[in-house]
Amino acid sequence: MELTLAGAAERLNAADRILILSHHFPDGDTLGSASALCRALRKLGKTVSFRCSDTIPGKFTFLFDGLEDVFYPLPEGFTPDLIVSVDVADVELLGALREEYEGKVDLSIDHHGSHRAFAKWTCVDAHAAACVEILFRLIPLLGVAFDRKMAACIYTGITTDTGCFRYRNTTADSLRIAAEMMEYGIDAAEINFRMFETKTRARLEMERLVLDSAEFFCGGKAVMMAVTQEMIAKTGAKDEDLDGISAIPRRVEGVLAGITMREKEDGNFKVSVRSNPPVSACEICAVLGGGGHPGAAGCTVEGPFASACRTVRKVVEQYMEKLSCSTAAH
Amino acid sequence: MELTLAGAAERLNAADRILILSHHFPDGDTLGSASALCRALRKLGKTVSFRCSDTIPGKFTFLFDGLEDVFYPLPEGFTPDLIVSVDVADVELLGALREEYEGKVDLSIDHHGSHRAFAKWTCVDAHAAACVEILFRLIPLLGVAFDRKMAACIYTGITTDTGCFRYRNTTADSLRIAAEMMEYGIDAAEINFRMFETKTRARLEMERLVLDSAEFFCGGKAVMMAVTQEMIAKTGAKDEDLDGISAIPRRVEGVLAGITMREKEDGNFKVSVRSNPPVSACEICAVLGGGGHPGAAGCTVEGPFASACRTVRKVVEQYMEKLSCSTAAH
Repeated sequence: MELTLAGAAERLNAADRILILSHHFPDGDTLGSASALCRALRKLGKTVSFRCSDTIPGKFTFLFDGLEDVFYPLPEGFTPDLIVSVDVADVELLGALREEYEGKVDLSIDHHGSHRAFAKWTCVDAHAAACVEILFRLIPLLGVAFDRKMAACIYTGITTDTGCFRYRNTTADSLRIAAEMMEYGIDAAEINFRMFETKTRARLEMERLVLDSAEFFCGGKAVMMAVTQEMIAKTGAKDEDLDGISAIPRRVEGVLAGITMREKEDGNFKVSVRSNPPVSACEICAVLGGGGHPGAAGCTVEGPFASACRTVRKVVEQYMEKLSCSTAAH
Repeated sequence: MELTLAGAAERLNAADRILILSHHFPDGDTLGSASALCRALRKLGKTVSFRCSDTIPGKFTFLFDGLEDVFYPLPEGFTPDLIVSVDVADVELLGALREEYEGKVDLSIDHHGSHRAFAKWTCVDAHAAACVEILFRLIPLLGVAFDRKMAACIYTGITTDTGCFRYRNTTADSLRIAAEMMEYGIDAAEINFRMFETKTRARLEMERLVLDSAEFFCGGKAVMMAVTQEMIAKTGAKDEDLDGISAIPRRVEGVLAGITMREKEDGNFKVSVRSNPPVSACEICAVLGGGGHPGAAGCTVEGPFASACRTVRKVVEQYMEKLSCSTAAH
């Protein structure tokens, strides 16, 4: 059943012992939402606990400053009378907690347009760039005033989900909410430095090797970069160190098709194509049995490396040639 | 003489033929300010012209869409009755135009705390993160309503001067003004992509070589990277391709002192140190006869490369050792 914000606030106000769940592989928005909600409910004198299937990455632990006792295991005698998920678009995304909580979530607060209802009550606003934007509206309805720590949680959720206000999902409201949060005296510059400017040494090494592997073709309009198992082993890069690595090739000026060849453990290659108009990444990947969006698409190609590269390069070259013919014809 | 915004608006309203000047090596804020002001004054039916001592970099030309005729040479018979500078903190920053306009600027609109008055009338707001924030307040006083193109100019000035809302100068007002500008239908994501995500191929090559040169020491707490004349020649990097390159070393997780050794044409080295607390870049550079701020400082060290690196490394190692002793003593 869909609830309005007021309806969600009513359910939260009526509960005494609340368990909050975030999604697995937690990010700034799910954790910022969870922490802001924990803090608000505690101010109302409620007993609150929080669970996430995975460890909180170091860069997000500041969100829980002063909330260290909120983490699982649940306090003795704590039986939640309300289970709330935040920023969880699908029950699958509870990860390892799915088995324990599937069918038991009472209230799901989320901002994904793709939300697949799994809770008794659902409160979804797909216009919100981040789930914390919903919390920003919900918390005052609980009768709780923001403080500096809650403001830092809400700011962090917005800045991480919008790529520091850069992505297309950023709205005027996102900026206005962030502005209001800044007025609680948070150190926004420090938050952004932590979220966006710090790279692990493994990530840096990986970027170096990826850049080393760059091969330009189609007169500089296309570039191919590689992420091989050897590179992963050499740098010790973890999955999180590879986040967003396929965005690198397209960032080169003049490049219309940026391709990343990522070797899988089975020796085949996950191909990511990022493109700028008029090139369609999706059309390129469709030729190779994959798909996606016009600006970002993917497919899988059989190894070994040299032959996988040749296969993809040939498809891109043919696509670009056809494109320049059709462009010239206009 | 210092003017209020209303005073500045009065002078602008009283003039018929206005020449606008930006600073040399123009950036998004000086150009965004100039273009927004041009557009506002034209809406009032005034004759407007614009000059900058340098060529407008390609990524900023969109700011002048539909304003192509505003550029120098001045229209025939155009004798300005008001000369206005925007975002120019010092008459020196007019660059090659200084000689022609020194002593002739009527109104200077600026946001630098370090502003050194050079115009007859000065309208400075040092609280503004970007000069366009002043234009945002001034333009309505001229009786002009914003439109989409003016909004793009103002947004661009804010986003470039705040590093996409990341730098410490960003205020809640910066975010609110950007929010209001978004409501005029600008493509903020596209602007930010152009401003922040695109790198020239020379820049990319340069980053690759800089990362290749990385040497970690002090147990990973310090890292030294190089920008040599050979690297500049090899990549064909221009000055603008080297912008912000000294920010790279400090971005590595765990690094407290990030050092960039940039070879000058005379074979000596400009040393940039960026640090995270408790390391003070300023204290390190002071030992080498330089100075700066706690987080960012510089000095010059004699070449050749190997000996320059040794000199700097020794100073950093001694500094870090002393620091760890004093930290341990607490």
